[in-house]
Amino acid sequence: MQYPEPIAKLIDSYMKLPGIGEKSATRLAFFTIDMQADDVTEFAKALVSAKRDLHFCSVCGNITEEDPCEICRDKSRDQSTVLVVEDPKDVMSMEDMKEYHGLYHVLQGVLSPMEGKGPEDLNISSLLKRLQTNQAIKEVIVATNATPEGEATAMYLSRLIKPAGIKVTRLAHGLSVGSDIEYADQMTLFKAVEGRTEM
Amino acid sequence: MQYPEPIAKLIDSYMKLPGIGEKSATRLAFFTIDMQADDVTEFAKALVSAKRDLHFCSVCGNITEEDPCEICRDKSRDQSTVLVVEDPKDVMSMEDMKEYHGLYHVLQGVLSPMEGKGPEDLNISSLLKRLQTNQAIKEVIVATNATPEGEATAMYLSRLIKPAGIKVTRLAHGLSVGSDIEYADQMTLFKAVEGRTEM
Repeated sequence: MQYPEPIAKLIDSYMKLPGIGEKSATRLAFFTIDMQADDVTEFAKALVSAKRDLHFCSVCGNITEEDPCEICRDKSRDQSTVLVVEDPKDVMSMEDMKEYHGLYHVLQGVLSPMEGKGPEDLNISSLLKRLQTNQAIKEVIVATNATPEGEATAMYLSRLIKPAGIKVTRLAHGLSVGSDIEYADQMTLFKAVEGRTEM
Repeated sequence: MQYPEPIAKLIDSYMKLPGIGEKSATRLAFFTIDMQADDVTEFAKALVSAKRDLHFCSVCGNITEEDPCEICRDKSRDQSTVLVVEDPKDVMSMEDMKEYHGLYHVLQGVLSPMEGKGPEDLNISSLLKRLQTNQAIKEVIVATNATPEGEATAMYLSRLIKPAGIKVTRLAHGLSVGSDIEYADQMTLFKAVEGRTEM
């Protein structure tokens, strides 16, 4: 037996989301039926609007309603530093920290031979062009994740950018603030010892 | 810093779904932006349609596009048996089994004093009215879940219905097919011994 078509279609749509299987999708669909009509309409509008009204900034690759994005347009920011991240969520985390006042470049992913992602699939050529045309940029901080792919991407970028005489730096690795040495993995401990600072 | 409004709104909408917190909602929202435009439109339409086009069957309380529902309209089904379940998903499970050919009644929940759910919040009065007006019904199978609330609801229904001279039965409890006695919980084992059958 099949569910009535409206709910079967909704289950199908929920199943297209990552990490949501048939059981969860069914639960979400039934939950949707019990939601306030206004909330459902709002949800539907938000879906359409997010897909229609958001674009990638032609300068940094971040998502934005207007092009160039808010950060690229803000001349009060430090124009000499570009922090390279994997995706827009990382820009948000950095901004929430409130201590970084330079510019960003969003790669939209990392190099991953396993997933068939090469340099041409990332915003790397736009970064190089940006560095060539904008002489104000003196430092590139590579803030890819501390994963094997993130590290490989960082190395790749460093080799491309350094020859142009631009300083390339990488975020520090070490113990998380508030963490226990007992529970740190060996790689993190190694990075913490290697990167020790004088006090 | 805030995400651009279209994505912030979409994150808010996703967060209204059960079991989805801010991190997951953000991940889903960014995934949505990368989805095919058609799929997103389809999703939005499915949301609105599920909320607008689905109703509860005035006879059995199941969800349906047309009232009465397909099962209640099907005169070839056994009109003498009504299987009482907690929600529409249970009807689907029973139908998928393909061995039950009677009618259903969907309570839309169980008695739960903890959640403030009393008999008046469930489709119980409609069940009683149905039993009174429809003399063809000879047996009510109570198929609430094997939880404390499900058991209490089953007991409650049994006490209401039995005096009217209608047979009330309960689904059998015991070991799941294919399961190991070693891993069965004590309550299940007890029910399996108690309900043993001659071979």
